[in-house]
Amino acid sequence: MRTEVTIQGLHAALAPARAARKSIGFVPTMGNLHEGHLKLVQEANQRCDVVVVSIFVNPTQFGAGEDFSTYPRTFEADSNLLAEAKCDILFAPSVEEIYGTQPQQTTVQVNSLASELCGNSRPGHFTGVATVVSKLFNIVKPDVALFGEKDYQQLAIIRHLARDLCFDIDVIGVPTVRAENGLALSSRNGYLSEDELTIAPAIYATMQSIQQQILAAKDPSKLNFTDFAKQGRKTLESQKFVVDYVEIRNPDLGTADKNGSKWVILVAAKLGKTRLIDNMTVTRPAIVVEA
Amino acid sequence: MRTEVTIQGLHAALAPARAARKSIGFVPTMGNLHEGHLKLVQEANQRCDVVVVSIFVNPTQFGAGEDFSTYPRTFEADSNLLAEAKCDILFAPSVEEIYGTQPQQTTVQVNSLASELCGNSRPGHFTGVATVVSKLFNIVKPDVALFGEKDYQQLAIIRHLARDLCFDIDVIGVPTVRAENGLALSSRNGYLSEDELTIAPAIYATMQSIQQQILAAKDPSKLNFTDFAKQGRKTLESQKFVVDYVEIRNPDLGTADKNGSKWVILVAAKLGKTRLIDNMTVTRPAIVVEA
Repeated sequence: MRTEVTIQGLHAALAPARAARKSIGFVPTMGNLHEGHLKLVQEANQRCDVVVVSIFVNPTQFGAGEDFSTYPRTFEADSNLLAEAKCDILFAPSVEEIYGTQPQQTTVQVNSLASELCGNSRPGHFTGVATVVSKLFNIVKPDVALFGEKDYQQLAIIRHLARDLCFDIDVIGVPTVRAENGLALSSRNGYLSEDELTIAPAIYATMQSIQQQILAAKDPSKLNFTDFAKQGRKTLESQKFVVDYVEIRNPDLGTADKNGSKWVILVAAKLGKTRLIDNMTVTRPAIVVEA
Repeated sequence: MRTEVTIQGLHAALAPARAARKSIGFVPTMGNLHEGHLKLVQEANQRCDVVVVSIFVNPTQFGAGEDFSTYPRTFEADSNLLAEAKCDILFAPSVEEIYGTQPQQTTVQVNSLASELCGNSRPGHFTGVATVVSKLFNIVKPDVALFGEKDYQQLAIIRHLARDLCFDIDVIGVPTVRAENGLALSSRNGYLSEDELTIAPAIYATMQSIQQQILAAKDPSKLNFTDFAKQGRKTLESQKFVVDYVEIRNPDLGTADKNGSKWVILVAAKLGKTRLIDNMTVTRPAIVVEA
């Protein structure tokens, strides 16, 4: 595995692959890698000839009072994991390399999607994400870019961004990796105390319970998504969570349609100082009408 | 010359050039071509192996009440001119091809630069420009993109955009082409009546007069840019112009620095219903200090 810290170095490292017209897969990360990231790398290897992983803790997607300065930076361990996972090129630029020394004037905004759910409690977050992803897309120029489904709204925004700005890049979502107790793997789980770690899986259990209620509803007109969400919120609040949102939406994040057959349950909640997010897709089997 | 109206067709047309690692020059236009555009094509041919010109009247950069619907569309004449000028590929997509049929959520904003000068009287204009240029850059993926210096602020914004979003594209400004009477060539000159056409060169004459005043100032501390601009405005207003702005700025569009040695004079003014813009760079020769 080759490690590059400059854009120029990355371009040089990728030149032979480009000349040979090899396909390039790209996994952008903020480091502190876990099995979820490694699954993205694995998927990239299956789809592409060359795999580039970036590690860049992007300051512009953190708000005031958020955890930019304390976000776990574990470069050596990450580097070892990526080499084992057959990453070809690790791109680990400095903040200056990505944002330069002159003031940046350009932002990429994904308008309506970015201002709700997580965007509501993290103003500017998704503009930071969309801008840095646009930069990284232009730097790496991959054929395929892979993102975790755990960050469901982020994935939806990046799909929109790629389509709206005509990026010639396939954006692939990769399923969430969970611990045995259901807790979605996340770098921020490292912030949780032992006590909080025993409570955190309640998010998954709550989503499972909502899923079951949706699937149990025989008459679609009686699907009360608002009630399901309220109950989910109550369950979590009874267990020390400070809930940001529990919502049921259509897969495109539009208002849940009772007559649809697929939805996504989305949860964001704080446990102590740690903000956790998770989601679960619910697909209703086709209704067989008796003859 | 090959003409393509779809993104897929353009990609196919460019595939052999990309495989052969030829350099691609790109000239985005809104059609109704004149000598100024053809100079861009000529410059592109000098710098690159393959030249792509787009003709696309971009709806999102026109405001309410502006001339989107009446903007001159002269495809056949343009096509002939481009073939003569040795354009290799003409890309002439429909609005649907560029913006799709689903609502677009993504915009590219070049913040402080876009809200002053022309951005002040054309709100949203430069967001429309920055967004469509980002799309076209991602569609054409050129090595070099060429823009006229006549649209000085637009060029400054696109330079920022390309740098800020890490586009791996050289943005080249090409000097303004003028009629013998000094009038900068522009598609919008076609809107002018015979009478207005005789008045329009006053913009150039006014900028020349300001230039002379700047160069005549022996003591830099006595450079009164505000006064020069005010006089220029008065001159134009005495000749039927409704002046939007006459300004003298640093080349980067920052506040004019008396101790600098290079500035740009920028003018926007309406003549009847037609909004004209122009600019002129002023460079003071180095002051020779006597021994």
